[in-house]
Amino acid sequence: MKKFFFSAALLIASALSMGAVETLNSPDGKLSVNFDLTADGTPTYNLVYNGKEVVATSRLGLELKKGKSLLNDFSLVRTTRSSFDETWEPVWGETATIRNNYNEMAVRLSQPFDGKMREMIIRFRLYNDGVGFRYEWPEQKDFTYFVIKEERTEFAMTGDHTAYWIPGDYDTQEYDYTVCRLSEIRKDMPKVLNPDNASTSVFSPTGVQTALQIKTVDGVYLNIHEAACINYATMHLNLDDKNLVFTSWLTPDARGDKGYMMAPCHSPWRTVMVAPTATAVLDSKLILNLNEPCKLKDTSWIHPTKYMGVWWEMITGKSTWSYTDFNAVNLDSIDYKRAKPNGRHAANNDNVKRYIDFASAHGFDQLLVEGWNIGWEDWIGFEKDYVFDFVTPNPDFDIAMLNNYAHSKGIKLMMHHETSGSLRNYERHMEAAYSLMNKYGYDAVKSGYVGNILPRGEYHYGQWANNHYLYAIEQAAEHHIMVNAHEATRPTGLCRTYPNLVGNESARGTEYQAFGGTMPHHVTILPFTRLQGGPMDYTPGIFCMDLSKVASDNSSKVNSTLCNQLALYVTMYSPLQMAADLPENYERYMDAFQFIKDVAVDWSDSRYLAAEPGEYIVAARKEKGGERWFVGGVTNGDARTLPVAFDFLDAGKKYVATVYADAKDADYQTAPEKYVITKGLVTSKDAVKLFMARGGGFAISLVPAGEADKKLKRLKIK
Amino acid sequence: MKKFFFSAALLIASALSMGAVETLNSPDGKLSVNFDLTADGTPTYNLVYNGKEVVATSRLGLELKKGKSLLNDFSLVRTTRSSFDETWEPVWGETATIRNNYNEMAVRLSQPFDGKMREMIIRFRLYNDGVGFRYEWPEQKDFTYFVIKEERTEFAMTGDHTAYWIPGDYDTQEYDYTVCRLSEIRKDMPKVLNPDNASTSVFSPTGVQTALQIKTVDGVYLNIHEAACINYATMHLNLDDKNLVFTSWLTPDARGDKGYMMAPCHSPWRTVMVAPTATAVLDSKLILNLNEPCKLKDTSWIHPTKYMGVWWEMITGKSTWSYTDFNAVNLDSIDYKRAKPNGRHAANNDNVKRYIDFASAHGFDQLLVEGWNIGWEDWIGFEKDYVFDFVTPNPDFDIAMLNNYAHSKGIKLMMHHETSGSLRNYERHMEAAYSLMNKYGYDAVKSGYVGNILPRGEYHYGQWANNHYLYAIEQAAEHHIMVNAHEATRPTGLCRTYPNLVGNESARGTEYQAFGGTMPHHVTILPFTRLQGGPMDYTPGIFCMDLSKVASDNSSKVNSTLCNQLALYVTMYSPLQMAADLPENYERYMDAFQFIKDVAVDWSDSRYLAAEPGEYIVAARKEKGGERWFVGGVTNGDARTLPVAFDFLDAGKKYVATVYADAKDADYQTAPEKYVITKGLVTSKDAVKLFMARGGGFAISLVPAGEADKKLKRLKIK
Repeated sequence: MKKFFFSAALLIASALSMGAVETLNSPDGKLSVNFDLTADGTPTYNLVYNGKEVVATSRLGLELKKGKSLLNDFSLVRTTRSSFDETWEPVWGETATIRNNYNEMAVRLSQPFDGKMREMIIRFRLYNDGVGFRYEWPEQKDFTYFVIKEERTEFAMTGDHTAYWIPGDYDTQEYDYTVCRLSEIRKDMPKVLNPDNASTSVFSPTGVQTALQIKTVDGVYLNIHEAACINYATMHLNLDDKNLVFTSWLTPDARGDKGYMMAPCHSPWRTVMVAPTATAVLDSKLILNLNEPCKLKDTSWIHPTKYMGVWWEMITGKSTWSYTDFNAVNLDSIDYKRAKPNGRHAANNDNVKRYIDFASAHGFDQLLVEGWNIGWEDWIGFEKDYVFDFVTPNPDFDIAMLNNYAHSKGIKLMMHHETSGSLRNYERHMEAAYSLMNKYGYDAVKSGYVGNILPRGEYHYGQWANNHYLYAIEQAAEHHIMVNAHEATRPTGLCRTYPNLVGNESARGTEYQAFGGTMPHHVTILPFTRLQGGPMDYTPGIFCMDLSKVASDNSSKVNSTLCNQLALYVTMYSPLQMAADLPENYERYMDAFQFIKDVAVDWSDSRYLAAEPGEYIVAARKEKGGERWFVGGVTNGDARTLPVAFDFLDAGKKYVATVYADAKDADYQTAPEKYVITKGLVTSKDAVKLFMARGGGFAISLVPAGEADKKLKRLKIK
Repeated sequence: MKKFFFSAALLIASALSMGAVETLNSPDGKLSVNFDLTADGTPTYNLVYNGKEVVATSRLGLELKKGKSLLNDFSLVRTTRSSFDETWEPVWGETATIRNNYNEMAVRLSQPFDGKMREMIIRFRLYNDGVGFRYEWPEQKDFTYFVIKEERTEFAMTGDHTAYWIPGDYDTQEYDYTVCRLSEIRKDMPKVLNPDNASTSVFSPTGVQTALQIKTVDGVYLNIHEAACINYATMHLNLDDKNLVFTSWLTPDARGDKGYMMAPCHSPWRTVMVAPTATAVLDSKLILNLNEPCKLKDTSWIHPTKYMGVWWEMITGKSTWSYTDFNAVNLDSIDYKRAKPNGRHAANNDNVKRYIDFASAHGFDQLLVEGWNIGWEDWIGFEKDYVFDFVTPNPDFDIAMLNNYAHSKGIKLMMHHETSGSLRNYERHMEAAYSLMNKYGYDAVKSGYVGNILPRGEYHYGQWANNHYLYAIEQAAEHHIMVNAHEATRPTGLCRTYPNLVGNESARGTEYQAFGGTMPHHVTILPFTRLQGGPMDYTPGIFCMDLSKVASDNSSKVNSTLCNQLALYVTMYSPLQMAADLPENYERYMDAFQFIKDVAVDWSDSRYLAAEPGEYIVAARKEKGGERWFVGGVTNGDARTLPVAFDFLDAGKKYVATVYADAKDADYQTAPEKYVITKGLVTSKDAVKLFMARGGGFAISLVPAGEADKKLKRLKIK
């Protein structure tokens, strides 16, 4: 391993200037970043933690499409330093308050070009748990418009660390994770790229996505990501696996360009989290803190939401989104008098009412209904431009009646806007679509971007599409609509600034359990990676793991125990939580379903009790506006027993603990639905050991004990 | 020449099948089209006029991006024939009624592919003055979505004819015309392509645009164009100059694809006009007839319009569109408190009021004001996305006051929406922009698409942009707004279906007289080419030909006499006519300006009295709803004297003729503003001979004589 470190360091060191290094320390002094210019004026930085380099000297800069690039020939103009410390309250979140405390250093550089001078600032913000830095181009006379050919930000690794990665891809993140050494990524890449479903948007045999979780050979946890990606392409990382240097790799546009910029402007923050433990990674608010404060004046209409959906029956193949079996639909001329209903359309009045009845009876806030609108017959695979109008229901979906019915039962319907990636078409209909939602009382939309992006040639993660996603969020805010965008770019903490962005998918979600399955370790990695940028609409809560029982043609098995599914409501933080399975499947296990009914979706406090990426996570959270706590634990493909100490509870107070645990013979492959529920009293001094089967987990609810609970015994796990 | 004909014919003939040819004759029997399949199942056609081929056997078909193409292996399923004859009334036009009379033949073909069968119809409509044919893909089980790699429609010429052409270009038509033999196009192409301002969108050394005017070696006038181009890329023609065969060449998208299709659908009509005389070409309504009838239920709000504009002073460089001299403007954050006005902004309250006063005093309907809105500082050259918001006036333009002022004077302001080609941005702001127009009483917009198209990589004439232009027209119609779109794709007669499309530029307009000049023959060719698809906002009426008198830095000379400028109001048909020069320039020649004040902009009848493309055009038109006639004549760079017989006038009726003619010593280069006005009585039996200087012309108004005119003498031209 030493070989790698040596060669990477040598590469840069030879060009290092003798000039004074500009150093910035974190508030606790444990982390420092050193900025320097090499002899040829190339900006560099390294990152030192507890006296040891965690990111070796790495170059900074950008290659431009035209003329001289922003790579070297820079001189230092001046360095400006400041400090910041505030505590802010998110509209929703894992904790009621978040401390934002950093030291800042802005390095102003100048560079001659074409007989003129231009300036660029590299701004560093150093937190106790990591660094954020970005490129800024101030307003200046001679440099306004430029086109980025590639950003060349390096992250030089100091050894052959372990990475938890998915392939770099311009269009999808819906991959299983691989855990391997950096030097093994090239070898493992082909195993991840499914040849049957190969994306054409994979750009390199050593390209990976962020947030990239890394565990160093010294046991330090690094996490490379970005924050506040606005009007800029999403960043990937490409590994030089000889020298173990990651370099930024932006998503191109249709012409291969990577960014159209106009000064004054700046890049997103490039972030490197540095943590001594895995739980500290999960605790970090680095990404949120690097985003701008909330831009919405009124956030009273934004609320965490627990919902069910007319969805899983289509995902599994039991039902269809489409109303007919037409080959194709021209929305301008479709005539439903000609249409023979296919008889399998799930979003019909009777079925939706059945779901409304169930969801309202069990205290859910909303019911998502997919397939309510016309156009699903040929929604995917054709790069169709006018694919949906977002306002016309299928003939068997009475939008007024069903919304009235839902409201009469105390719940709302949740809107669904699948766009098929046809961005122009969505924007053309957006105002009418959001207005329709206002008219019928919807206040949340799940949007989707399945398929190639239109305008054709653009990618899901390019500057053009990123601009669209934010436009959709801003327009929705005008209509007091919450957005949960699937297949959009991976989040970078924008939910702080636009808290109506209550969820994203942007990773392999539960649906893949119906598409052949997902590796059990998936949910032990997502909180380290995908969730760093914001909440995921993972859609947990599957209770029937043999999907042939749902849809006879579906041979998939859900690679999870039932208790693992329960635990996800705690381990996978989101203000938007779905109970994804069918009512009839919940009816088989109403005692376990009770946990989903009970669990909160907004929190005043969160504690990660134990974690190791790829292996296990145990989290405890306290509901906002209440005294209940909920605990969740998940494991990977290995069974294990973990201790849970209740020392986070209020001292001297008794709580009724209800523990949902895998049965001793549970196993995600052979007995996924076997569980044991145990109830008993606990205090902050108690601790238990909890078994998790392979692919398993546990969930605990902790409710302050009342008079009626006096006779309960102390919790005892068998 | 025979050599060319022979080789082209041989190429196809060798593959001809022995099968029965399907023949369709025109209503008058003079024109016939013969459809055939070659031995390998390739569809072909030829066109015969008066017993002689005018289009030799030419292949039909399309190359697809994936799988088997639609080029050969076709079998004839059946041929269906019908006839049609109706007379319709355009909302505005050259004539009050238009006869649409054709014989039709639909050839249904089938082709095996991938073990299945698919069908394609080639539909021919044969008029006395030409043919239209298109490809149709009916709804069918096994063939719905396909991507066009290239359309392969041939137009095989029968000799080395004379062509009046501009280079094929995906983004601009603003070229001077070249007149040469087909075999000389390759040689002449580099002369037209200005190396200082080279378009990157020229695709071939023998590529030309439509409408392409051709004069055959036998003296027959052919005109190749297309009609009703909707949701399809604009067609160019590429010449095989060995065999003298033109083949269709569609405008690609950002990925190089040329059309995304979904059956049922069809191509635009491909048209070949065949005319014995040049005036018959100008008389033809072939393109309009091949378009669908008006789709707007209410057209009462659409009206022909004569307007002036705060425009020429910016075009010449006297004034600016922009309010400041900022390098760049961020519309989200621009602060006009910081702005130092540049002092040259034309769209300021005082100046606009001055134009309103002048335009209203002289009977104009509207006043265009460009530069009224913010964003002009960096509107061009940067592929800026958010370049305009279309609703925020510059600080010195009081939108409410100025509209009220104009209305109080009996005229309207005309809106201006420059988009800089940023299509998404325009669509995002379109509803607000049109609503603003409704609020302040605008009912017409001049839109512009200068610069590269965004989404980047798309072209002005591709399917994506074509779809946008029509969207803008449709949305405008919802707001009762008339559209005059500059730099949009060349028109193909859509103004019949959407008569709120009152104008387009889509060719080299008068502005080029301020950018170095335009060849004098230009206006003798445009009616044969650009105007075939619909009216052009050519913006005539320049009275001051030495532009250094308008803007000291401008060394351009207008290559036209003043009378040529007057004639254009008649020879260049448009329901939208501008008087483009400055009030102060008109004030110098108020007697000549009288013609512009008098001339009508909508017509019950039009007669082309004489014409030869590239040389001269003389047209007479009768106003709609009145008895006045107006005559215009233009010549190229040669002086000439042409007879004008007034036999189109009502027999036995006396008319006061006012003749605006070039002075004997007038010349577009040496004495462009010299003219003679002669007044006298004429009847239908009279005729005059009128002189036109080099780059000159004449204009005549003919008003039924009243009591007051009794003493007038008979018209006598000296």
